[in-house]
Amino acid sequence: MQIAVLLYDRFTTLDAVGPYELLGRLPGAETVFVGKERGPVRGDQGSLALVADRTLAEVTSPDIVLVPGGPGDQDAMADEAITTWLRTVDAGTTWTTSVCTGALVLGAAGLLRGRRATTHWLAYEDLRVLGADAVKDRVVFDGKYVTAAGVSSGIDMALHLLGRIGGDELAQSVQLLTEYDPQPPYDAGSPDKAPAHLVERWRRETAAATG
Amino acid sequence: MQIAVLLYDRFTTLDAVGPYELLGRLPGAETVFVGKERGPVRGDQGSLALVADRTLAEVTSPDIVLVPGGPGDQDAMADEAITTWLRTVDAGTTWTTSVCTGALVLGAAGLLRGRRATTHWLAYEDLRVLGADAVKDRVVFDGKYVTAAGVSSGIDMALHLLGRIGGDELAQSVQLLTEYDPQPPYDAGSPDKAPAHLVERWRRETAAATG
Repeated sequence: MQIAVLLYDRFTTLDAVGPYELLGRLPGAETVFVGKERGPVRGDQGSLALVADRTLAEVTSPDIVLVPGGPGDQDAMADEAITTWLRTVDAGTTWTTSVCTGALVLGAAGLLRGRRATTHWLAYEDLRVLGADAVKDRVVFDGKYVTAAGVSSGIDMALHLLGRIGGDELAQSVQLLTEYDPQPPYDAGSPDKAPAHLVERWRRETAAATG
Repeated sequence: MQIAVLLYDRFTTLDAVGPYELLGRLPGAETVFVGKERGPVRGDQGSLALVADRTLAEVTSPDIVLVPGGPGDQDAMADEAITTWLRTVDAGTTWTTSVCTGALVLGAAGLLRGRRATTHWLAYEDLRVLGADAVKDRVVFDGKYVTAAGVSSGIDMALHLLGRIGGDELAQSVQLLTEYDPQPPYDAGSPDKAPAHLVERWRRETAAATG
């Protein structure tokens, strides 16, 4: 079982590392971090780079592919080397997955047309434009296509996948070992729960930023 | 405001990246990843390396220091370059923090003696041996010393810190933007909640592994 995590410039680091931390504990799985070139790939905050140990050409038949989101999503969507690679490996995957706006990159590769999928709450419309049926759930399964909502939701997606692949006890063990017993001190993690003026502020700022 | 995240061989990647993803969004903050040498530092699963952009000698006065845990904790605890650096920078920090068994590294530096602190649920006794008052909470504040439980708990710690540093609205905005609205499909994230036979299995395996 090989898990391939795609890295591209200005990806959001937790989108990749959250699900990796849990999924990578699947017994017998090998995880590879994949980039256009080998070497450090810098995340969206600029202060952290993760190392791609393999190039796209070196990873041809992963069982699971995971695409993180981030402000670099637009460049990744427009990058034929990336979208062609995604279409090619998708032909052989057991699971094709994304976190946050990674779904837009899968969508740009043509992999989500007519499928139920989710993304960051600020990007539902972008996902619809790519032909997906955008769903406001935290983790969405449509056949082998599994998409998660914003950033931290990849951790929940990983637990769902561990359960499907290795059974409930494996997933529960990984949850216990990573002590994933969330106790956020605020209840503002979705647009339905956060103070309305904050939701509006971020909608406005996103609209302004994306023109 | 400078946030320094310590990296050492065989650290647990989510311990570092979880809180970084949230804390790094503090307006005006600069985050630096720090290692004994510049360059890639490989995490405990072997398949992911994060890049240290600075050496210990290059980071002398961070406002916040964050120490992740992981199987490399024992080597880090025995490494005088690391423990001396921690004692030195701690003299000037506003917040000295750890996730998971990162608390043991702080403890080995002598920084938690007589203080209330937490760590991974399998490591409470190791923390007591270092003179700390081990507390079974997810996030523990004792003055400027802030410790979080296993792996994923660093995300909760970051929200607490964001609230203390920047106020509730900042913390809520970051929670909303990272869509931290946890919905794990199992409720097995602590030894009080997981199936008892799994808790016992991991206690036995840890005891066997540590002799």
